[in-house]
Amino acid sequence: MSFPSLQEQLDIITANTVEIISSAELEQKIQHSIKTGAPLKVKLGADPSRPDLHLGHSVVLRKLREFQDLGHEAILIIGDFTAMIGDPSGKSKTRPQLSAEEARENGASYFEQASKILDPHKTTICYNADWLGNMTFADVIRLSSHYTVARMLERDDFERRYRSSEPISIHEFLYPLAQAMDSVHLRNDVELGGTDQKFNLLVGRDLQREYGILPQVCITMPLLVGTGGEDKMSKSLGNAVCFNDLPSDMYGRVLSIPDTLIENWCRLLLPLTGEGRRAILEGWEEDPRTAKRRLAREIVMQYYSAGEAGAAEEHFDRLFVHKQAPTEIELTRFSEPELPLVDLLTTLGAAASKTDARRMIQQNAVSIDEEKITDVKTIITLSDEPKTLKAGKRKFFRIATAGNS
Amino acid sequence: MSFPSLQEQLDIITANTVEIISSAELEQKIQHSIKTGAPLKVKLGADPSRPDLHLGHSVVLRKLREFQDLGHEAILIIGDFTAMIGDPSGKSKTRPQLSAEEARENGASYFEQASKILDPHKTTICYNADWLGNMTFADVIRLSSHYTVARMLERDDFERRYRSSEPISIHEFLYPLAQAMDSVHLRNDVELGGTDQKFNLLVGRDLQREYGILPQVCITMPLLVGTGGEDKMSKSLGNAVCFNDLPSDMYGRVLSIPDTLIENWCRLLLPLTGEGRRAILEGWEEDPRTAKRRLAREIVMQYYSAGEAGAAEEHFDRLFVHKQAPTEIELTRFSEPELPLVDLLTTLGAAASKTDARRMIQQNAVSIDEEKITDVKTIITLSDEPKTLKAGKRKFFRIATAGNS
Repeated sequence: MSFPSLQEQLDIITANTVEIISSAELEQKIQHSIKTGAPLKVKLGADPSRPDLHLGHSVVLRKLREFQDLGHEAILIIGDFTAMIGDPSGKSKTRPQLSAEEARENGASYFEQASKILDPHKTTICYNADWLGNMTFADVIRLSSHYTVARMLERDDFERRYRSSEPISIHEFLYPLAQAMDSVHLRNDVELGGTDQKFNLLVGRDLQREYGILPQVCITMPLLVGTGGEDKMSKSLGNAVCFNDLPSDMYGRVLSIPDTLIENWCRLLLPLTGEGRRAILEGWEEDPRTAKRRLAREIVMQYYSAGEAGAAEEHFDRLFVHKQAPTEIELTRFSEPELPLVDLLTTLGAAASKTDARRMIQQNAVSIDEEKITDVKTIITLSDEPKTLKAGKRKFFRIATAGNS
Repeated sequence: MSFPSLQEQLDIITANTVEIISSAELEQKIQHSIKTGAPLKVKLGADPSRPDLHLGHSVVLRKLREFQDLGHEAILIIGDFTAMIGDPSGKSKTRPQLSAEEARENGASYFEQASKILDPHKTTICYNADWLGNMTFADVIRLSSHYTVARMLERDDFERRYRSSEPISIHEFLYPLAQAMDSVHLRNDVELGGTDQKFNLLVGRDLQREYGILPQVCITMPLLVGTGGEDKMSKSLGNAVCFNDLPSDMYGRVLSIPDTLIENWCRLLLPLTGEGRRAILEGWEEDPRTAKRRLAREIVMQYYSAGEAGAAEEHFDRLFVHKQAPTEIELTRFSEPELPLVDLLTTLGAAASKTDARRMIQQNAVSIDEEKITDVKTIITLSDEPKTLKAGKRKFFRIATAGNS
C-alpha cells in the first residue's frame, strides 16, 4: 500500500494536537511505514461505562479518522474488563459495575455512534477482557513489577490526593497498568487520547518498552469546552451535545454557545479541509451570528444529513426567531384509549426513561392542549380527535386513538 | 475439649512476646474458646525460599508449640505462591524463583525441620498457591481495593525507601496483600511472627475486618541475635546455628556466643518450664562458663538427644579444652586412587558445595597429614595407608583406597 508523503501526513496528524511524545519518533514511524508499506496501528481506548458519545469524544475520533484517511489502521479498544469490575471500593460514582452483557452492548453502541466519525469498515474493534480476563495473580505481580510507586504517584490526581491525605486505593494503581497492558498486547505504534489521558498513555509507552516493544507515540488532543463556555464537555454537567441528540436539539444546543467558543469549536469539530471550516474561521469575528448558524448546520450535517440540518434550522427559526408554533407535527396513534402519561412520554421518546418522564412532569414541563399536567400518575384519555402534547420547551407531539380518521 | 484457665493460658502465651495486638481481644478469644470448647486457629507463615531453619526461627515455632500444648490448632502456611514468582523485578537477592516442585520440596523440608519444635501430628500444613494461584486479575483488583497506598507506605522499609527516592515496584505492594489473603482464607484467630513481620500481620488483621471476619490477634516475638552478639541471626551473615547442624558444630557455635547473650538465648530458646532454663537464669552471672556449657547442651538436646549432647560436649572438650586430637575418626574408603581435593571435601560433607570447598582451600583451612594444601586444583593420591584430612578447625576425616585393609 502507498501513503502520502511524510510532510503531507505530518501536516494532518499534528493539526489540533496538544502534545506529541515524541515528534521525532512519529516521523520515524511514518517514514518506516512509507518505506515498508505497512500501515501504523493507532489505538484509542473507549470506556463502555459511559456509552453516550458527545462532541467532546468526536475530537479524538476525528483524529483517528484522519489516520484512517491516510491509510493507517484504527483500533478501538472497548475497556470492558474494568467496566465489569466497576469500582470495588464503591468510592467512584463514575465507574458503575456492568455485567458482561451490558459491557458488550455498550461497546457495540459506542462503536455504532463512533461510526458517525470513523470509517466503520476500516476500524478494528477489540474487547480487552479477552486478554486481561485471562491474567492470573502471578501475571499481575509480574506486570506490576515493571512500574514504581513513585512514578505512579506522579500522576496529577494521585499526587494531589496523596498530598492532601485523601485515600488512594491500591487497586487504582492497577487500572493504568491494565490499560497499558492493552498496548503491550496490541503492539500499536500510536495511542490517542485527551490531555486528561496523558499519564495513562505514557504508562502504555513505558510498559511496551519494558516488554521489549518499540514504544508507542502518544498524541494528546484538547478537551472540548461544553456549551456553557467554561467547563469541559460532560454529560453529567448538562453542557454536552450528544451524537444521538435529535437534529433540532443538536442545532439549538450548538447555537447556545457563547461567541468566544465559535473559533475553537470550528477548529476541533469540523473536517480540516472543509469549506465550512474555512468560511467560519474567516468571517466569525465580523458576523458571529451567521458563523454560529453555519457551525450548527455543519455539525448537524455530520451526524445526520444536509437536509436534516436545513430542517433543524428552519424548525429553530420558526420556534425561536419567529416565535411560531411548529407545523406539521406527526400524528401518533395508540390502540389503547387510556394510557399513563409516563408511558406516553417514554413511548414517544420525549423522555429517556420513566424516571426521566416523572421528573419532567414534576418540573411542570409537560402539557396537553396547553394545560400543564403535574400529577405523575395522570392517565390520559385519547380519542379520534388529536391532542397536542408538549414536553420541555421544544418537543411537540400529536396523539390520538387508532380510530377511523 | 477442655482448656487450661484463662490466666494459665495468658501466662504462657504472653511470655517472651514483644507485642500483642490486642491483649483485650486475645482474652476474649481465649474465653470464647474455653466456653465453646473450640481451639484457637493459630497461623504462622513459612518462606520456602529459605529452607534452612536456624535458632532464630525456633523462637516463633516455640510460641506456636506452646499454643499446641494448650490445646489450640497450629497452622503452618507454606508461602509457595510468592516463592514460585520470585522477584520479577530481579532486584531482591533473597527471593529466588522456585519451581512448583522445589517449593513443595522446600515446604516439606521446612515442616520436617519445624517438627523438631512443633508437634507434627497436631500441625496443619497448607500451601497458599492452592488459593492464591486461582485468583484472577479481577480478584486482585477487588482485593487491593481494600487497602490504601498511604497505609502501605507507612511500612518502615517502604517509608524509608520512598523518602530517599529508592524505587519501590508496585508488585511489592501486592505481597503483603497476598499474605493477608491467607488470613482471610483461613479465618484464623491469631497470627505469629517476628517483630519484622508486624506490618504484614496487621495487614492480615485489617483485611479480615474488611471481609467481615473477626480480626486476628497479632503476636510478635523478638528477633534472635546471632552468635556474633550484634546482628540478628541470619544464615547469610554466617552467625546462625541451624537445626541441621551436626551436634558438635551446634555445641561449639553456641559456646562461641558472648556472655552477654546467655540470658537472652536462655529465655528465648529453652522451654519455659524446664529445669535448665531456671538453673541458667539463676547462675549465669556468677559462672558464665558453666551456664553457657549447659545452654549449649540443652540446645543440642532439643535437636538431638541427651546422649548426643553429652558426646558433643566431650568432643569439644577434647579438641579445645584439652587440645587433643580427636579419637575414633571414622575411616572412609574410596574406589578411585586419585581424586580432586574439591570432590573429596564435598563427598565427605566437609564442604557444602564445590564453591565452598574452593573457598576453604584458598583460606588455608585444609590440610592432609598436617600439611596445608592451598592449590584448589590439587589431586590427592590415596593408598591403603589412611591419611588424615583436616578441614576447618574441628573437622577430621581419615581417607584411604578401598584396598584389602
